[in-house]
Amino acid sequence: MKKLINLPENVVREELEGIALAHADLVRVSLDPYMVIRNDAPVQGKVGLVSGGGSGHEPMHGGFVGLGMLDAACPGEVFTSPTPDQILAATKAVDGGAGVLHIVKNYTGDILNFEMAAELAREEGIEVEAVVVADDVAVKDSLYTAGRRGVGATVLAEKLCGAAAENGLGLKQVADVCRHVDEFGRSMGMALTSCVPPSAGRATFELADDEMEIGIGIHGEPGRERMKLASAHDIVGMLAGALVEDLPFRAGDEVLAFVNGLGGTPLIELYVVYRELDRFLTDKGIIIGRNLVGSYITSLEMAGCSITLLKMDADMTALWDAPVKTAGLRWGA
Amino acid sequence: MKKLINLPENVVREELEGIALAHADLVRVSLDPYMVIRNDAPVQGKVGLVSGGGSGHEPMHGGFVGLGMLDAACPGEVFTSPTPDQILAATKAVDGGAGVLHIVKNYTGDILNFEMAAELAREEGIEVEAVVVADDVAVKDSLYTAGRRGVGATVLAEKLCGAAAENGLGLKQVADVCRHVDEFGRSMGMALTSCVPPSAGRATFELADDEMEIGIGIHGEPGRERMKLASAHDIVGMLAGALVEDLPFRAGDEVLAFVNGLGGTPLIELYVVYRELDRFLTDKGIIIGRNLVGSYITSLEMAGCSITLLKMDADMTALWDAPVKTAGLRWGA
Repeated sequence: MKKLINLPENVVREELEGIALAHADLVRVSLDPYMVIRNDAPVQGKVGLVSGGGSGHEPMHGGFVGLGMLDAACPGEVFTSPTPDQILAATKAVDGGAGVLHIVKNYTGDILNFEMAAELAREEGIEVEAVVVADDVAVKDSLYTAGRRGVGATVLAEKLCGAAAENGLGLKQVADVCRHVDEFGRSMGMALTSCVPPSAGRATFELADDEMEIGIGIHGEPGRERMKLASAHDIVGMLAGALVEDLPFRAGDEVLAFVNGLGGTPLIELYVVYRELDRFLTDKGIIIGRNLVGSYITSLEMAGCSITLLKMDADMTALWDAPVKTAGLRWGA
Repeated sequence: MKKLINLPENVVREELEGIALAHADLVRVSLDPYMVIRNDAPVQGKVGLVSGGGSGHEPMHGGFVGLGMLDAACPGEVFTSPTPDQILAATKAVDGGAGVLHIVKNYTGDILNFEMAAELAREEGIEVEAVVVADDVAVKDSLYTAGRRGVGATVLAEKLCGAAAENGLGLKQVADVCRHVDEFGRSMGMALTSCVPPSAGRATFELADDEMEIGIGIHGEPGRERMKLASAHDIVGMLAGALVEDLPFRAGDEVLAFVNGLGGTPLIELYVVYRELDRFLTDKGIIIGRNLVGSYITSLEMAGCSITLLKMDADMTALWDAPVKTAGLRWGA
């Protein structure tokens, strides 16, 4: 295992300490339980936004805490759900009296623990809504999840809901933004290489030198098909083809196109992929109104990419363009 | 070779086409010769900033073109210097009548070609100053370079000079900012893995499963020492120790601390490294006034990191905090 770490069992704690030291202007970090909380939380009268999930997907979610995005993130250990207590503590820490939205990626462990935390919070008098994001079209059920997994669209949901909450929308309206993303967002990923969870010390799966996995999950769960390595053109055809068919996206639709790196893929390759995606969509009459290119929801050092398409309208575009000030995503502030 | 590309010989062109499509709001891209140019260039009365170098180090330099940073970037092929003609064309494209600064990383090929371009531009009546950044303390002379290589401090120079130029400073003053960075900035890197230039199709060097290279160059040039893999704590001790000794940085000094990923290293590891760096410097009484954590000057998919320390004062801090709006670095705009 080749990693820039100390003891494998301390990676998440030490990472969080690093975030606390680097971004004290944006967030405060709790180590017991693990929480990354917006510096000025709770913001009175604003809907609070909480997300979380296993670590190893950085900058998601801790890097998305700040103005215009999340109020708190609950990181679990690597690829491990956060606990109900942890989520409850975050919910209480960000409740400014207007209720709290839980943005939950569809993984069975996350769902159970967020549900339990929501119940406990309601018992303490906090209004909580939860929206589950399930955008991965690759497989119907997978190793850890009933239904579709929640992946790249979650990044977009956090940005868009964050802007809606800053605009003063109420809990139901902010939750509606998240439901819009879940309804009109679709993702699929692929891997060139595996990744090594620090505590395991070995790869979660093996790929031969000339193989790739199409439809991979962000924990390395098997996807649709293992096949010989193909060109960026053909890979984008497979991924974007599946997305467009699924919703479906149609000629004249305007989308946000998100090309995401899985952690070990350099930016030069992501731009090659973006070029292919633009050509693919343009050819179908689908218009890219906004885009995001970079590594935002990762799987440790896995090489590969995912593509997310989200159908946009004028309201969604305005929310996307609104200021955001987090370690992982920042503009206009 | 496992990469998200099409034909290896088209990688740079297709990447630039991807940048053009993704960031049309920020830049225009020329494919003959390769140039990424700020949308509103030339900005009348502002000093123009041009940098460039081999591709494979993204987001450097094309991702740093925009308000508050570069006016143009000249990408060569992967790990290959841009040509004098290319640099001349960029210089002419951004000349707003206040002169043009060339920010040059110290690589022999880059130096020669930037010098020739500067001469040609002067013959056409454009005032050009060039500052060479040579911040890598690892080795004195290396495979491609006489003297110290120019690495991470170049990112900081581009940001700081960009802000100075936006503030209306003259050519000499903007060049002085760059000279300050060269004088007071120090860097050193290390690699866990090698990288594969697309046209070569094989790794530039080999590292065993339990080995790392300390003092590596961004083209995979040999560094100070190949040794057994060590902890993040010990690696930071070696890198930061060399930097602090070299300038030297002393107790009471305020620095910008930059932890950079080499392309294949995930953010979770960079924060573990940042934590170690903070502890190392705090222990020596050196104060981190500002920081930057992420992959900004890379070596394709190489796993590893570099650390850059830059001595700061109030003027430099104000320039760092000034708005910047580029694909790779953005805040306050």
